Amino acid sequence: MDRLDAIFAPETIAVIGASTQKGKVGHDIFANILSGGFKGTLYPVNPKAKSVLSVKCYTRIASIPDPIDLAMIILPPKAALPAVADCIAKGVKGIVIVSAGFKEVGGEGARIEKEIKALCANAKVRLVGPNCLGVINPSPKVSLNASFSARMPNPGNVSFISQSGALCTAVLDYAADKGFGFSKFISIGNKADVDELDLLRYYYNDPDTDVVMIYMEELSRSAEEFISEVRQMTSGTNPTHVIAIKSGSSDAGARAAASHTGALAGSDALYDAIFSMSGILRCATVNQLFDYAQAFAANKYPTGDKIAIITNAGGPGIIATDMSEQSGLKLATFSDETVKELKKYLPSTANFHNPVDVIGDAAKDRYENTLATVLSDRGVDAALIILTPQSMTDAIGTAEAIVKIARNSIKPIVCSFMGVVDVSDGVKLLQKHKIPVYQFPESAARSLGALREGMKWIFRKILPQYDLVYDTAKAKQIIDRYMKEGRLVLGELDGNEILKCYGFNTLPMELSKNKTEACKIAETLGYPVVMKIVSPDILHKTDAGGVVVGLEDSESVAEAFETIMEKSRDYNPDAVIEGVLIQKLAPKGKEVILGLSKDPVFGHAVMFGLGGIFVEVYKDVVFRLSPMGRNTARRMVKAIKGYPILEGLRGEKPSDIEIMEKHIVSLKAMADNHPMIKELDINPLFVHEEGQGTTVADIIIRLENQES
Amino acid sequence: MDRLDAIFAPETIAVIGASTQKGKVGHDIFANILSGGFKGTLYPVNPKAKSVLSVKCYTRIASIPDPIDLAMIILPPKAALPAVADCIAKGVKGIVIVSAGFKEVGGEGARIEKEIKALCANAKVRLVGPNCLGVINPSPKVSLNASFSARMPNPGNVSFISQSGALCTAVLDYAADKGFGFSKFISIGNKADVDELDLLRYYYNDPDTDVVMIYMEELSRSAEEFISEVRQMTSGTNPTHVIAIKSGSSDAGARAAASHTGALAGSDALYDAIFSMSGILRCATVNQLFDYAQAFAANKYPTGDKIAIITNAGGPGIIATDMSEQSGLKLATFSDETVKELKKYLPSTANFHNPVDVIGDAAKDRYENTLATVLSDRGVDAALIILTPQSMTDAIGTAEAIVKIARNSIKPIVCSFMGVVDVSDGVKLLQKHKIPVYQFPESAARSLGALREGMKWIFRKILPQYDLVYDTAKAKQIIDRYMKEGRLVLGELDGNEILKCYGFNTLPMELSKNKTEACKIAETLGYPVVMKIVSPDILHKTDAGGVVVGLEDSESVAEAFETIMEKSRDYNPDAVIEGVLIQKLAPKGKEVILGLSKDPVFGHAVMFGLGGIFVEVYKDVVFRLSPMGRNTARRMVKAIKGYPILEGLRGEKPSDIEIMEKHIVSLKAMADNHPMIKELDINPLFVHEEGQGTTVADIIIRLENQES
Repeated sequence: MDRLDAIFAPETIAVIGASTQKGKVGHDIFANILSGGFKGTLYPVNPKAKSVLSVKCYTRIASIPDPIDLAMIILPPKAALPAVADCIAKGVKGIVIVSAGFKEVGGEGARIEKEIKALCANAKVRLVGPNCLGVINPSPKVSLNASFSARMPNPGNVSFISQSGALCTAVLDYAADKGFGFSKFISIGNKADVDELDLLRYYYNDPDTDVVMIYMEELSRSAEEFISEVRQMTSGTNPTHVIAIKSGSSDAGARAAASHTGALAGSDALYDAIFSMSGILRCATVNQLFDYAQAFAANKYPTGDKIAIITNAGGPGIIATDMSEQSGLKLATFSDETVKELKKYLPSTANFHNPVDVIGDAAKDRYENTLATVLSDRGVDAALIILTPQSMTDAIGTAEAIVKIARNSIKPIVCSFMGVVDVSDGVKLLQKHKIPVYQFPESAARSLGALREGMKWIFRKILPQYDLVYDTAKAKQIIDRYMKEGRLVLGELDGNEILKCYGFNTLPMELSKNKTEACKIAETLGYPVVMKIVSPDILHKTDAGGVVVGLEDSESVAEAFETIMEKSRDYNPDAVIEGVLIQKLAPKGKEVILGLSKDPVFGHAVMFGLGGIFVEVYKDVVFRLSPMGRNTARRMVKAIKGYPILEGLRGEKPSDIEIMEKHIVSLKAMADNHPMIKELDINPLFVHEEGQGTTVADIIIRLENQES
Repeated sequence: MDRLDAIFAPETIAVIGASTQKGKVGHDIFANILSGGFKGTLYPVNPKAKSVLSVKCYTRIASIPDPIDLAMIILPPKAALPAVADCIAKGVKGIVIVSAGFKEVGGEGARIEKEIKALCANAKVRLVGPNCLGVINPSPKVSLNASFSARMPNPGNVSFISQSGALCTAVLDYAADKGFGFSKFISIGNKADVDELDLLRYYYNDPDTDVVMIYMEELSRSAEEFISEVRQMTSGTNPTHVIAIKSGSSDAGARAAASHTGALAGSDALYDAIFSMSGILRCATVNQLFDYAQAFAANKYPTGDKIAIITNAGGPGIIATDMSEQSGLKLATFSDETVKELKKYLPSTANFHNPVDVIGDAAKDRYENTLATVLSDRGVDAALIILTPQSMTDAIGTAEAIVKIARNSIKPIVCSFMGVVDVSDGVKLLQKHKIPVYQFPESAARSLGALREGMKWIFRKILPQYDLVYDTAKAKQIIDRYMKEGRLVLGELDGNEILKCYGFNTLPMELSKNKTEACKIAETLGYPVVMKIVSPDILHKTDAGGVVVGLEDSESVAEAFETIMEKSRDYNPDAVIEGVLIQKLAPKGKEVILGLSKDPVFGHAVMFGLGGIFVEVYKDVVFRLSPMGRNTARRMVKAIKGYPILEGLRGEKPSDIEIMEKHIVSLKAMADNHPMIKELDINPLFVHEEGQGTTVADIIIRLENQES
């Protein structure tokens, strides 16, 4: 027996802290298991009661004569600790602690939780909670409602994981209203042991789960581990579709960071990375979570992006068309045969082209014939049916026809039966047969778009990895020197040396201490040159007036040297100034930014985006975490909105996109090899035309004290 | 009697085409008026029936012995035409034609609609439809349900205008489910006469309407007239709040236009302009339309953006916080007194700071005390209350407490009672007392954000207009010359002359026919110079390789002349080349684009945005139509995402924003004075530092043949 089976499908349950007093959690949970029709055997444990709801009560778990699979504990922390020890002694396989007052309140509660966690880990007993709503398994074989919600949902193929207990009751209530079925339903609270990844593994192997909905507040384990495993589960020929909503205050902007990358690496951007890399579809609202789950639960997927819309009203058809296009879908162009066939069934005032308008007085037959016809068109990948209640409308008959056709079609069908009361019989029938049905056409269209996104992920192209070689030893030497000297900001010269070790193309440059040196260096490098202040105390050189570009002769170099020194001293009178760097002017290219930022929880994230004001105002950047390979790098480059600029606008030649993918992979390798790198900005990196590579124009590297 | 009163509050109605056959529209509408409890008198008209639903039937409207206010016509087009003539002869004040088969099918139907329209206009009889659902007025004084929906909504203070009849039934059904009340409800179909603006005027003067919801497919009258009037209605001390959803296939990208402005001026961008200039809040979905209407219907508005969130569960509190911030709101920081007061009522495990967590076991009293306390904090402008059903939750008691407090508070309160069944009594009570209540906290937060947006519009600053003088005569002379010669593309020299007439600062420039001339001109203008090909056949000079910038001496000018001529001939061997323009290099500045585009329906739109690739990839541009004044121009400049770039990033000086506002006003004046301008791009316009003005760097003007 899988240890999580003991939680989702136990044969015996002990409710420790079962209470005779109605309204108390210990009573309600016991009552809900009992009235939920649990197929196994239930034992209340309470030293002060003879029986609970007529069921014989035991003083301790030890006194129960039979073996126990699952113990539900509803006791305050101090009482919970010995109860857990008792459970372990009894040989239970799983424990759910419902009560609150543990880690979330800190102090004593947190200490006890840690102890309980250790006890369970030692005994290899799986623990859910504390501070959770409980577990539900509506399957008729189990029929377990070990939660404080009196509502047992219908069985279905969608499983739910919630970090918030309170949300669960609302979700169950909402689901009941929508006739939405669940396979497994769990609230994981403080996640002392069982967390999202454990459950995803379990659900992935569960034949009754096709779709997983997650409500996440924060991921409490390694992002790399999570991504690597979940990516497998959401891929392949038998994937689990995972849809998630993540809440958490947006903290972008509030972060103090020396680099652009650091400033933009807010947790929301990193969660975007985690979900995107794992193949998890992220939703913005609970409504969307349900909408998408309904679509995926039907287990039919569009192999292309061409949809047919069938409607009995023009307006909603237009709404659906708009939202379809916004969701990445296209309206199919019907074949001549399809149009000819439609003309047989529809009145002459109908629209025979997409969106098909079967006209307000359509009864069941027009819908049936139209749907069958458009689905058999090879150019149609999915159908969206809109029904508005009008005088001739036959909601139930139309629903029956849709169900019949859907049974024999591999193409997805989604419906919008608009209205609530007038169409409710039809809606219920569709729901019963797992045909996704929505109140308004925009939800239907958006959900179909989500299905298509899901398909694109599953059928994504996988390329062989790059084989890149780095001079790790040399880079380490430079960094070690800084660390030893306690200096945490790398100068541009050394920064460039490190980048060279990782395959970046940098510009010839030299440090000048005075005007004469500056002119001499410029003559040797060749004009035009760029001059930049070098000071460990001045990170943003441009802000300090410490950068002059495009100097063409020795006179201007001498003049620029003076200006730079003067302005930098004005900017920060206490700055230690090492001199002025003379650098050859970079050949032209598109400005991009590449960066690294180390997150205290998730480790190093790589950032890519367009450089210059794009970074600051449009924030058109994308982050990715480990594991970083060629495929992630490729999708990363394509993910920015400004990607068409790199592909080449208005007849421009495309930029060298492949080398940027290599750079992204290399930067991540650099972070792995030198974990003391805290922040890194290559800004700008000039990207040249295809095959011409890139040139680093500026670099900031900040290290962190490893002891800290 | 206002002629629209005859439609919304008639005393007598004739139903022409009333039918005895159940299921026919002529029967159902008659039946719905009858069973809806209409307070006036109802007369069926049908030559073949003695009575309809026991009511004495008349063969013609002329035979009805009493005067008739409203005639509902349910007859096919050919029969409708003489019926309209009869109605006019009878002296009816209003006509609603429900039947379809008119303009929307073209041909005969369209012709008949035109005739009917003329008849009504002549007789000053207001006409609704054809092809519409009808009219509903749930007010107990009228109780009129002249529609084919059997459902009479509750009375309320929200009026509805729908261009789609089919959507109406769904909306009524949905509203019934939500307990949503309406003041007036109308479907306007083909809008042969009565349209949105007529109805907005009527609703604005209707004491029973505070909020108007519009479902619009297209605006069928002058945008300028619409904007000018609606802007008045949505402003001032007693505004009508208008919320709209507009559908229509997105056509951006599919447009063939010579300029960037023309290419981006899709109808959706223009509707954004119309709504934004009118003070109409645009919604993306029907759900949002209802959500916002509910919020506005409560008639309480936040005077600031600081909200307090009260919740009995952490997760939903975080969701609400996220969405509030995304919706432009901020979480209030409570005063010390507030926190002290909260500590009196809440358990120690509660969170006394925003969002306030009253903890899962909160009954009614904690909500009541907390809400009263935070609302009395001067730093709180609105409250959002979240209730999740938990064991101690008292949904109805909490709702009662909220209603009581709301009665004495001018600050808006919105609620999210999560779930459906468990909280439904509380929800119903809130709805009854017009407290906005939503299923999920994100909808509540977003609606509060919409309220705040509405307030910002009403309290917008209004500045005095600019007094600008133009040399209209000179500009006209130039354009007339082109028109006379049948040339529709203005050369850069002439384009610049026109811009100068409208207050733009252009660069000295001269046309050269050969190398020698080029060098001579460059010497006179002074280096550095820019050189550009001049050909009416080459609009996108850069694409053709016809532009070289930053030439520093006569040698490079001569060389560039050759290159430009050669590349331009390669680009278009048939192009008539007039020569190469020599222009002084523009002083540095931020690149913006200013443009004009003439829409066949809405006339000239002005576009403003950041120039360069911003236009092409980020499409960070905004359009506005007439009436264009300083205030619209100012809001337009502020509306782009890249506005912070113009304000000055990283210690940069701000750009000259005021002159851009003037330019926008001037461009619109140019379009009004010279309506034959079809497209205009000033791209880029260099904007210099505050007070330093702008410099035109390139200009394209295309005229249109006025005959065409």
